[in-house]
Amino acid sequence: MEIFKSTESEVRVYSRAFPVVFNRAKNAHLYTEDGKQYLDFLAGAGSLNYGHNNDILKKALLEYVEADGVSQGLDLFTTAKQDFMESYKKNILQPRGLNYKMQFTGPTGTNCVEAAMKLARKVKGRTNIISFTNGFHGVTAGAVAATGNKHHRGGVGVPLGNVDFMFYDGYLGEDVDSLAIMDKMLSDSSSGIELPAAVIVEAVQGEGGLNAARAEWLKGLSELCEKHDILLILDDIQAGNGRTGEFFSFEFAGIKPDIVTVSKSLSGYGLPMALVLFKPELDIWESGEHNGTFRGNNMAFVTARAAIDTYWKDDEFANSVKAKSKLLGEELQAICDKYPGEFKVKGRGLMRGIEAANPEVTGPITKLAFEKGLIIETSGPNDEVIKCLMPLTTSEDDLRLGAKLLGESVAEVMQKSVSEAS
Amino acid sequence: MEIFKSTESEVRVYSRAFPVVFNRAKNAHLYTEDGKQYLDFLAGAGSLNYGHNNDILKKALLEYVEADGVSQGLDLFTTAKQDFMESYKKNILQPRGLNYKMQFTGPTGTNCVEAAMKLARKVKGRTNIISFTNGFHGVTAGAVAATGNKHHRGGVGVPLGNVDFMFYDGYLGEDVDSLAIMDKMLSDSSSGIELPAAVIVEAVQGEGGLNAARAEWLKGLSELCEKHDILLILDDIQAGNGRTGEFFSFEFAGIKPDIVTVSKSLSGYGLPMALVLFKPELDIWESGEHNGTFRGNNMAFVTARAAIDTYWKDDEFANSVKAKSKLLGEELQAICDKYPGEFKVKGRGLMRGIEAANPEVTGPITKLAFEKGLIIETSGPNDEVIKCLMPLTTSEDDLRLGAKLLGESVAEVMQKSVSEAS
Amino acid sequence: MEIFKSTESEVRVYSRAFPVVFNRAKNAHLYTEDGKQYLDFLAGAGSLNYGHNNDILKKALLEYVEADGVSQGLDLFTTAKQDFMESYKKNILQPRGLNYKMQFTGPTGTNCVEAAMKLARKVKGRTNIISFTNGFHGVTAGAVAATGNKHHRGGVGVPLGNVDFMFYDGYLGEDVDSLAIMDKMLSDSSSGIELPAAVIVEAVQGEGGLNAARAEWLKGLSELCEKHDILLILDDIQAGNGRTGEFFSFEFAGIKPDIVTVSKSLSGYGLPMALVLFKPELDIWESGEHNGTFRGNNMAFVTARAAIDTYWKDDEFANSVKAKSKLLGEELQAICDKYPGEFKVKGRGLMRGIEAANPEVTGPITKLAFEKGLIIETSGPNDEVIKCLMPLTTSEDDLRLGAKLLGESVAEVMQKSVSEAS
Amino acid sequence: MEIFKSTESEVRVYSRAFPVVFNRAKNAHLYTEDGKQYLDFLAGAGSLNYGHNNDILKKALLEYVEADGVSQGLDLFTTAKQDFMESYKKNILQPRGLNYKMQFTGPTGTNCVEAAMKLARKVKGRTNIISFTNGFHGVTAGAVAATGNKHHRGGVGVPLGNVDFMFYDGYLGEDVDSLAIMDKMLSDSSSGIELPAAVIVEAVQGEGGLNAARAEWLKGLSELCEKHDILLILDDIQAGNGRTGEFFSFEFAGIKPDIVTVSKSLSGYGLPMALVLFKPELDIWESGEHNGTFRGNNMAFVTARAAIDTYWKDDEFANSVKAKSKLLGEELQAICDKYPGEFKVKGRGLMRGIEAANPEVTGPITKLAFEKGLIIETSGPNDEVIKCLMPLTTSEDDLRLGAKLLGESVAEVMQKSVSEAS
Repeated sequence: MEIFKSTESEVRVYSRAFPVVFNRAKNAHLYTEDGKQYLDFLAGAGSLNYGHNNDILKKALLEYVEADGVSQGLDLFTTAKQDFMESYKKNILQPRGLNYKMQFTGPTGTNCVEAAMKLARKVKGRTNIISFTNGFHGVTAGAVAATGNKHHRGGVGVPLGNVDFMFYDGYLGEDVDSLAIMDKMLSDSSSGIELPAAVIVEAVQGEGGLNAARAEWLKGLSELCEKHDILLILDDIQAGNGRTGEFFSFEFAGIKPDIVTVSKSLSGYGLPMALVLFKPELDIWESGEHNGTFRGNNMAFVTARAAIDTYWKDDEFANSVKAKSKLLGEELQAICDKYPGEFKVKGRGLMRGIEAANPEVTGPITKLAFEKGLIIETSGPNDEVIKCLMPLTTSEDDLRLGAKLLGESVAEVMQKSVSEAS
Repeated sequence: MEIFKSTESEVRVYSRAFPVVFNRAKNAHLYTEDGKQYLDFLAGAGSLNYGHNNDILKKALLEYVEADGVSQGLDLFTTAKQDFMESYKKNILQPRGLNYKMQFTGPTGTNCVEAAMKLARKVKGRTNIISFTNGFHGVTAGAVAATGNKHHRGGVGVPLGNVDFMFYDGYLGEDVDSLAIMDKMLSDSSSGIELPAAVIVEAVQGEGGLNAARAEWLKGLSELCEKHDILLILDDIQAGNGRTGEFFSFEFAGIKPDIVTVSKSLSGYGLPMALVLFKPELDIWESGEHNGTFRGNNMAFVTARAAIDTYWKDDEFANSVKAKSKLLGEELQAICDKYPGEFKVKGRGLMRGIEAANPEVTGPITKLAFEKGLIIETSGPNDEVIKCLMPLTTSEDDLRLGAKLLGESVAEVMQKSVSEAS
Repeated sequence: MEIFKSTESEVRVYSRAFPVVFNRAKNAHLYTEDGKQYLDFLAGAGSLNYGHNNDILKKALLEYVEADGVSQGLDLFTTAKQDFMESYKKNILQPRGLNYKMQFTGPTGTNCVEAAMKLARKVKGRTNIISFTNGFHGVTAGAVAATGNKHHRGGVGVPLGNVDFMFYDGYLGEDVDSLAIMDKMLSDSSSGIELPAAVIVEAVQGEGGLNAARAEWLKGLSELCEKHDILLILDDIQAGNGRTGEFFSFEFAGIKPDIVTVSKSLSGYGLPMALVLFKPELDIWESGEHNGTFRGNNMAFVTARAAIDTYWKDDEFANSVKAKSKLLGEELQAICDKYPGEFKVKGRGLMRGIEAANPEVTGPITKLAFEKGLIIETSGPNDEVIKCLMPLTTSEDDLRLGAKLLGESVAEVMQKSVSEAS
Repeated sequence: MEIFKSTESEVRVYSRAFPVVFNRAKNAHLYTEDGKQYLDFLAGAGSLNYGHNNDILKKALLEYVEADGVSQGLDLFTTAKQDFMESYKKNILQPRGLNYKMQFTGPTGTNCVEAAMKLARKVKGRTNIISFTNGFHGVTAGAVAATGNKHHRGGVGVPLGNVDFMFYDGYLGEDVDSLAIMDKMLSDSSSGIELPAAVIVEAVQGEGGLNAARAEWLKGLSELCEKHDILLILDDIQAGNGRTGEFFSFEFAGIKPDIVTVSKSLSGYGLPMALVLFKPELDIWESGEHNGTFRGNNMAFVTARAAIDTYWKDDEFANSVKAKSKLLGEELQAICDKYPGEFKVKGRGLMRGIEAANPEVTGPITKLAFEKGLIIETSGPNDEVIKCLMPLTTSEDDLRLGAKLLGESVAEVMQKSVSEAS
């Protein structure tokens, strides 16, 4: 590991928490060079919904590479792109009654957020965007302005602007109607809040601490946007691609956002890919106005199409995710129940975790879990939430195993706390 | 192609100029579904320096995928990353006397530019960055502020700031010392130019019209930066990875930039990858301050390493690029010589083209070339430059063939112009 | 009036509501060229607390001009400035236990707000400032960013930044603790709110609709600032100089702001003058860093000193203001009581008015009042508040007369509404 | 002076250079409390063109105050305002063929610059403004962004934006056509310079070091603006009101700027007043969009009108200024001639000075001059210019006396330099 220590930038994160060299991976497991196996409840930060090196996707990828399919095609028409688009339209958009144009941006989440924000500003001719407390939308200069996190904002080195923050569902407590406050601010010509081009929101805030908005809140937000002539950008980068038990995380609320950003598990194989979906009437882009060399990652088109054709032609996969979500929820609840007032379950679908009343314990717990063979990270403003983001293809046995290892880690740390306190 | 027309955003570019569906590619050629072959002088906008589906890299990639190597590893330590870093350090950095830390950002050029600008601002505690006329550095909000192009700047929908533009080498004519002007502005406490954290510059401006800075200008710029305590960011995204006949485009000037941004042909196989290199003393990043899900594209590490091990262990490849550069230059000069005052050769290395005195002719010429089987694009503020950016592995015969097709296209268009004028 | 119509910019405001040419003024009355008398409940928007052409101040001014006292002295030392500063320190600051440095800025309220915001940012090394809903702090580019009003913000033509808005006391209803929300946002590292250098607040919002903060809210805000290491800027431009019955509008809350901005009635004679007060340890200005030609308006020093020496040596004047405040409050309440649910009394001290449930009526009411000889304006985001801002030297008889004219105007308009509705 | 030291902010400037307490002033002289007389070549930084306490203006002012004329009238119609506007239109605008609307802003130069920049941005719907090297336009946040001086820019504490700087006439040397460079930048869609709403320029840069633009440069700039559809804002705050021998400093170039900012000597008596003039078709202000309590300083209207009626009804005064300009120029040239290579005359009209090759000498020279009874300041980025800005009503004898005192001070300092060097 000498090369990492001598030569990789101090900016690195995950290798600090999990300081081993990985070599191989399959579905829900990672393996080190010396063969040690880890159960992966991190899963590429949500970019491996179909597991590591999913065999169906792998086959499609290998065939494509073998056949000298176009690997890098900028935004040229290619067979791979055509096949992906047709499948996505037929299997994802049309069944959900969604009529969207597709824009392939540089293959990162932050890039498609930048494109979405640009487009909204261009369409409405306004500069402001409203984001929400604890929102996370990326770290490039446009996207990070909509990201609440001080750590990331401060890194930019220039003041960030043109974004105002409102209260996410539940932020001010369950009894406070945060949309009513937002409505008041937008309706008041002297509130100091500029009428925004758009709001950008996650249906479940992954980095922000697994805060899950209620269906009625999302529905109310959508109506509020319509009332004030504001576009609704739904950032589905982490919560989408089946993570919540439906393909899009906003389906359960019955809304149709104006713009949707998609990335992470879109390719299904961990290959970089990003997509902005938007209503056709918003497509006022000039040719090339937002570009980027890798905006057509053809290998990603291939695996993305294979994933859709395999998992989203019918409800079977979605149903299995729902079943696993229930199972995970029960397992996590069981852990929390052992420590009244200390932990509570957060999140939705297979984007679930436990929040510690005392943020000091989560670091030791995940550290211990890693020693036991479980890779799992924390999130939230104070790293107070232990976050389960395993592949959706994780077996029920592995789900239970992971919960067991987590439960044991919690127990040991809590016991130690008690011992130290007494 | 119906799906593209109905469903892809109007933002698309290249498919407008080259409206066929590509299926397969090898080295310097692209093939449509019905088997038509095109000679590719675009090469993924410079991201395919080793050709389409290079067999050596392909072999490494297939083996890695077959073996279930880690596909998506965030910034975890992996064998693939380790091998890449060791090879890059040994074969690229050390022989050139460059002692750099390596930061892997989200795998796009614009993302590594964002990181470089952030880091410079953080290190110097200043907000301003100086960029140059006709510079292009990407389209996310931070990077596009350093991009001169109105088309891209205007797309953002908010005023861009914290960047001042100075004159690139030759911009004000050959007899004007643009560095002396810059020095005067920086030395004058009342010039209105804030002392910048960094300057960001390309050694050859690809999008800006194949403007090639002279070695003495780059050297002077480096000294000017040192004089005023400013960091020098060399954006090597398009001109690097061997394009100019040396690995880095700035080697010929004998300078050692503080920060270097690398992407495009870094992976060698068209796989998204981006890297920021910087002097160790600048590595004041806090853990995770700049992150991104796909910042560790392990398949790209594999092909990148194979490319370096294959092409950069000795001078053979570099020498072949230099020989081809000479050949290309001669061929282009021959075209220009036929139309005195109408065209001139621009650029350096295999980043070369011809600038038309009348920008109106370049569109028809590249359109005609496409009909003849040559894919080639234009660049420059008025699309006045026809830009050759073929794989470095293009055979000399194909180089000649491309030049021949281009020459014929020029001839036909110029003849038509003459006919129409008379 | 031809010259006004042909040649004055459309930006003019008050002459639209009161379209006569005034010639002469005394205490609470304005007179037109043809001798018509108006009772002035506008009083230079609060800049004539001691009445028009107050005889005591007038005498001091005339003597100074007669004697060729320095009229324009930049920031040179002058006798007039010395005398003012000594009197202000002895009679205003010291008795209130306030130890402030004094900075004379360009003689406008917006200019001293700009200086205050600059100084706070400089001291704390942070860019953000927190302002409050419905706050008004001026229209130059720095100050207007802290002003909530869309009308003024939009006029700037560039997006305004580096200011976040929080909820003023009572904005979300009487039962919502807006300081608790603010504390939560500031304590949460992921709320999207940058730690500000300062908050800027009015104890009574004049332009914002006569919203009067409670003493405990101001006290709580002061403590919150201390908790988070934020400077407290109290904008006393409209509410200060005795308007609320105490010299400073914040005295009743028992707080000592870090920075206080003062202007409007400071000179007492309507002469432009502005002053920033701040704790000595904040005085890190470099010489000349904030300047302006008219920052030493010596005639204003003369009248300002006369006003202080006359009215603030003992409690007599303050007590008379308190008595008049009580009287005015009762008169306004009596008007409101006649129309249950239609009007309510707002404000504090002699900065008081009535808010109409239906904003449509305020225009006709003030128009009618003008016809009856009363000059009075509206404020609030929808002009829903009729605002009494008469000289503090207005006689009790004139106070009653003004209230009577206002009451009659209300009655006529309300009757007309009823008639029209039936 | 104790009160100043203990209580006035460290931001003070002039009282550091001239640390005495002034009491009385007349025409070109200031007097201290103990009767010492100083010849004033500073003249309120150009705000006392008609001298201190000019008797004609004083008479008008006293009569107005005596008669209880409206002292503070917001933007109400008053007789004083009417009379001023009629006189200004008849005696200043019409004879010069200028058809302008008049906007009275808050009574400071920086405030009228803010209004001018806002209006230009509003009219053109663009955010950028172009300013020039060494330009000075005020210190409020909007105006200071167009001010080159680092000292003032840095004081703001936030990055300044939406302004680009171009080269003032002569900045790059006499042989460089700075307008051609500007034209190239504006014509090039990839230069990084956004098409501005306006340029803002001084005909003579007062604070920037008495740089005087040539008539042909101003004419060329005006044409360039027209070519690119850019508004021309002429900042005449310091150079206007007769300072250059014509009422407006731009008359000699035969141009008609779109917008002109006027302040400083406008009232003639040192009373704060500011005015924006603009072509009628630009008057798209909404009522009250830019406001300010002291925007109608009626006493200033009175003295301003008296000044115009007295000095600008015919050419006599202008001719006397031209004669004095010639005299001053000769006197200053005579000083420079004694020290070849050490000094040169700069400026135009009675806005003239000498630039020292060695900026170190100007401080000692002006200090010595003060000891000799002459108040004179320095300007320029390095305080390298000694700047004469005496009242235009200074007698020829006093002009000669001032030049004599300055010449003696130069001689003593230069002799000392020589002595020390040997």
